[in-house]
Amino acid sequence: MCEANAYIVNGEQEELYLENVDRVIMEDGHLILENIFGHKKIIKAQIKELALVDHKIFLERIEEAD
Amino acid sequence: MCEANAYIVNGEQEELYLENVDRVIMEDGHLILENIFGHKKIIKAQIKELALVDHKIFLERIEEAD
Repeated sequence: MCEANAYIVNGEQEELYLENVDRVIMEDGHLILENIFGHKKIIKAQIKELALVDHKIFLERIEEAD
Repeated sequence: MCEANAYIVNGEQEELYLENVDRVIMEDGHLILENIFGHKKIIKAQIKELALVDHKIFLERIEEAD
């Protein structure tokens, strides 16, 4: 299986956000992540980097405009 | 190996852009794609969707502002 783990990048930090991600859908400035177990999470972020052979997805939060 | 094929989505059409992609890096509104053979391509686009178990990355071109 070729799922990947999604991490939120914050400066030098990488925080694990969701494991075993299969699908990511960009919709209205949000990302909908769904893993192979059907677990879904929605985050206001964008995909910063993919490293698929290493099974990694790096996300960057989008700041809310006031 | 868990590389994926990158497609450009244009309405109902999916056009193959680069096969066997390992890394995708977002930089200054462009995407840099690199496949497992070291072949690199740069495109003004964003990642619209990932379907990793199906080995697919869907890209959407960003229109140039005049």
